[in-house]
Amino acid sequence: MKPSVQEIKEIRLAHGGGGTLSQRLLHELIIPVLGNPLLNTLDDSVLLPDPGSRLAFTTDSFVVQPLFFPGGDIGRLAVCGTVNDLAMAGAVPKYISLGMILEEGFPVADLKTVIGSVRAAAEEAGVLVVAGDTKVVEKGKADGIFINTAGIGMVPANKTVSASLAAPGDAVLVSGSLGRHGMAVLSSREGLGIRTAISSDVAPLNHLVFSLMESCEGVHSLRDATRGGLAAVLNEIAVSSGVGIELDERSIPVGEDVQAACDLLGFDPLYVANEGVFAVVMDQREADHAVQILKGFEYGRNAARIGRVSKESPGRVTLRTNLGTCRIIDPLSGEQLPRIC
Amino acid sequence: MKPSVQEIKEIRLAHGGGGTLSQRLLHELIIPVLGNPLLNTLDDSVLLPDPGSRLAFTTDSFVVQPLFFPGGDIGRLAVCGTVNDLAMAGAVPKYISLGMILEEGFPVADLKTVIGSVRAAAEEAGVLVVAGDTKVVEKGKADGIFINTAGIGMVPANKTVSASLAAPGDAVLVSGSLGRHGMAVLSSREGLGIRTAISSDVAPLNHLVFSLMESCEGVHSLRDATRGGLAAVLNEIAVSSGVGIELDERSIPVGEDVQAACDLLGFDPLYVANEGVFAVVMDQREADHAVQILKGFEYGRNAARIGRVSKESPGRVTLRTNLGTCRIIDPLSGEQLPRIC
Repeated sequence: MKPSVQEIKEIRLAHGGGGTLSQRLLHELIIPVLGNPLLNTLDDSVLLPDPGSRLAFTTDSFVVQPLFFPGGDIGRLAVCGTVNDLAMAGAVPKYISLGMILEEGFPVADLKTVIGSVRAAAEEAGVLVVAGDTKVVEKGKADGIFINTAGIGMVPANKTVSASLAAPGDAVLVSGSLGRHGMAVLSSREGLGIRTAISSDVAPLNHLVFSLMESCEGVHSLRDATRGGLAAVLNEIAVSSGVGIELDERSIPVGEDVQAACDLLGFDPLYVANEGVFAVVMDQREADHAVQILKGFEYGRNAARIGRVSKESPGRVTLRTNLGTCRIIDPLSGEQLPRIC
Repeated sequence: MKPSVQEIKEIRLAHGGGGTLSQRLLHELIIPVLGNPLLNTLDDSVLLPDPGSRLAFTTDSFVVQPLFFPGGDIGRLAVCGTVNDLAMAGAVPKYISLGMILEEGFPVADLKTVIGSVRAAAEEAGVLVVAGDTKVVEKGKADGIFINTAGIGMVPANKTVSASLAAPGDAVLVSGSLGRHGMAVLSSREGLGIRTAISSDVAPLNHLVFSLMESCEGVHSLRDATRGGLAAVLNEIAVSSGVGIELDERSIPVGEDVQAACDLLGFDPLYVANEGVFAVVMDQREADHAVQILKGFEYGRNAARIGRVSKESPGRVTLRTNLGTCRIIDPLSGEQLPRIC
């Protein structure tokens, strides 16, 4: 970081004003951490090479509270969320933008931590932050920091996955154990009187997806199980494809710590948000091989085959419980946990 | 709009939760207005065709206050801002994303107006809204609505413009009269005790830029004169290109109403934000022709040639005043008007 007349300690309105204080924020705090030849042009639009393929494009805003939670923070979340949305389209994530809305008075130490997390997550995922924007609003008109990321990925010509491509006979897989992000954020909120050691699973999933798609021909649907949990994404797939999905409760991976916290608070892990878990619907003949591939990754070590697609009950997800009974898994109407991402 | 059990009147936290209430917000309010085949897939990432060219990519967040002002609102601003950033890279804007952060309790009537403005501006610019995201935060944790737009444009292979390409001898043009956006927003803020009939100039500039680039070979630098006004963007060009820029005050178009309001409030129109005006630095031999082209457009009717690029005083912008004196035009340090965009 280049020395400055006086170190910036706290965000002021003028840091978002486009003048020399904005330039200082950019050159002292952001570029030294996130700089790369494309971002450093600092033009209003960045020029990217001809991709020579179809593109995937996505956007997501992040308003998680608290900003820092066990296992991650809003910066890591903002990169992983957009990287994962691209990966779920079968795309190789390449470029992301970073739009920050800061509240006047936001501590610069916290901003540095967040920007450092953006960098680390981007490096891990293999994406470049190539465009950005920072605005500042008056104290009391935001909540510390909100982040929007948009992302561009390249889609191999021969690969198509979609929530509408699940077919009867397919197997349903999940890449990891459920509910860690939601319970980590919840337990780190003040005033709830619970303390657990649960860490968020927030992670970039693109390397797992890439390896899966390279090794298996019959991957039909991919969805990361974020807001609304696994229940929400499997319902989306069931509705989009006009199929039923049947899950076996005993095969669904849930950590003992997460299950205990859910039992205590009355949550069902199927509905709790994840930020590093995705569902796969694919040809059942390749499913066991796919589980082995996923297990070869740190973020896939708890991958499991958890159910199947059927012609029965199109648009519906059902669960065969440990007791042998059958239960319908509806999507949530509202949200269990506001501001989880 | 499809009929619903009960019409949504006010935004609630669960409208951002990813469950059925989020789905209702999407299908009752957003898709009916902004829907198109790409957006309607509602996948986490949208798939775009192989562009077959270089891409321009940009992002911007919008926190303007008030949300509605003479001549526009935050929705029109969010589309035009990103469209114009793409156009200034010499790109043809194609796709935009729309990330909204809503405050709990935000009136749905206002949201409808904003979304309608997004649609109208996107149609005018010829871009498609292809990806989106909506989050809701608790009352008092935001300020009505914040919008982030990211955009993708296609860059013709043979066209390169950059703030670093201004050359001594070039002419400096401006596409319209200065200061309308800033003065419109300022005069619509409560409690300032001023009332003017000034309307914002907020407009998509891509059609003007496209026509200019088609007709003239020697366009070197383009910049829209937003935050910090014309002074800021000409200083950026002067610094990036290592040249001096000399302006003639008498040739700079400023409306009488804007000049009067600026005089009253102690502002200099050179520093006031515009949202529908851009600066052009280009080969002086084509400059008069370029002015005629710009004047053929509604948003370019006040276009003018206002100065020249020189070898003298590299990195500096100077103004020859109506009195014949010479004044240095520095960039602003802070911001005259917070939350102008």
